[in-house]
Amino acid sequence: MRYPNGKKYVASKEEKVDKPHRSLLSAANRGMSLEEDINLSNEYYRDAGIALITKRPTPINIVKVDYSKGARITDAYFEKQSTTDYNGVYKGKYLDFEAKNTKSETSFPLSNISEHQIIHLKNVLKHGGIAFFIICFQIKNEVYLLDASFVIEFYEKGGRKSIPYSVFKEKGVLIKQDYTPRLHYIDAVNELYFR
Amino acid sequence: MRYPNGKKYVASKEEKVDKPHRSLLSAANRGMSLEEDINLSNEYYRDAGIALITKRPTPINIVKVDYSKGARITDAYFEKQSTTDYNGVYKGKYLDFEAKNTKSETSFPLSNISEHQIIHLKNVLKHGGIAFFIICFQIKNEVYLLDASFVIEFYEKGGRKSIPYSVFKEKGVLIKQDYTPRLHYIDAVNELYFR
Repeated sequence: MRYPNGKKYVASKEEKVDKPHRSLLSAANRGMSLEEDINLSNEYYRDAGIALITKRPTPINIVKVDYSKGARITDAYFEKQSTTDYNGVYKGKYLDFEAKNTKSETSFPLSNISEHQIIHLKNVLKHGGIAFFIICFQIKNEVYLLDASFVIEFYEKGGRKSIPYSVFKEKGVLIKQDYTPRLHYIDAVNELYFR
Repeated sequence: MRYPNGKKYVASKEEKVDKPHRSLLSAANRGMSLEEDINLSNEYYRDAGIALITKRPTPINIVKVDYSKGARITDAYFEKQSTTDYNGVYKGKYLDFEAKNTKSETSFPLSNISEHQIIHLKNVLKHGGIAFFIICFQIKNEVYLLDASFVIEFYEKGGRKSIPYSVFKEKGVLIKQDYTPRLHYIDAVNELYFR
């Protein structure tokens, strides 16, 4: 396994002891590293030849560039991602997903999902792609994969803008947490879409 | 057709007269707007429900953020794209491509394609995705779609690091230039991959 800097991956002593502890046992910190865990899992999946999933860079609006310093950006601001964070290819199919944390134990609030993302995921489904969410219930230390159609359904119906935990239990797939990959989410993709 | 700002697309007088002129007739400016033409074509394909292709934002390494000004980035620099500029979904399949200009009339030099991009596109092909290049010969005002396998082949063999124009004529598909979409590149995708 190799990282983009070309160095071979060797688990450090610290990683062997602390990171799994953080990742597997410490519920409070668990969700904070969801993005990191997905990125590491994607590196593993890429290097093992299993799937090719990449994270879209955060879009940034550049106001000023100082060319005297070799194209140094001196003024810019973050833009909202109008699509999702991740997409890629698995067994020839297009995969697209968004990953989110919640501190709630009873439901996933839809307040931090934008309408742009919902429209984007509806389009993905329309074109025959696979679209889902990876949701981490931080207190429970459980990570679920749920097809985007359920999220779209809850987003578009009136009233309470959250998805009950029970929907994840019944319609989603619990993602196994491990060392490499941190999140076996392609197993969940297999279970939901390739059986 | 609607743009992300929610406004309906209405061609302005200036656009009707000047942009097609620039786009279709002025060879010198033609290639400079390849990215813009692809972005506009992608908006058209999205709004017409034909395909969903997005541009990856340019990755930026952020050094300093001023939170007193509401998360204003005050120091950052451009990073090299380690993948390609575009990917998306068409008829359920994963599409991935890079777009490049050349001022040469006789060949496309491979010097501005990175090894990371070649590795990425090999991975796309390995996982059953569709991978190609859109190359604009600016002087000729011709835009070709060429399957990534040819580019990989020329990249990996020793000697001259360029692809002769004749390869594009024989193995590629000439992309029709128009008003909406500016580049009918999905027609070329159909011809190459969905016949």
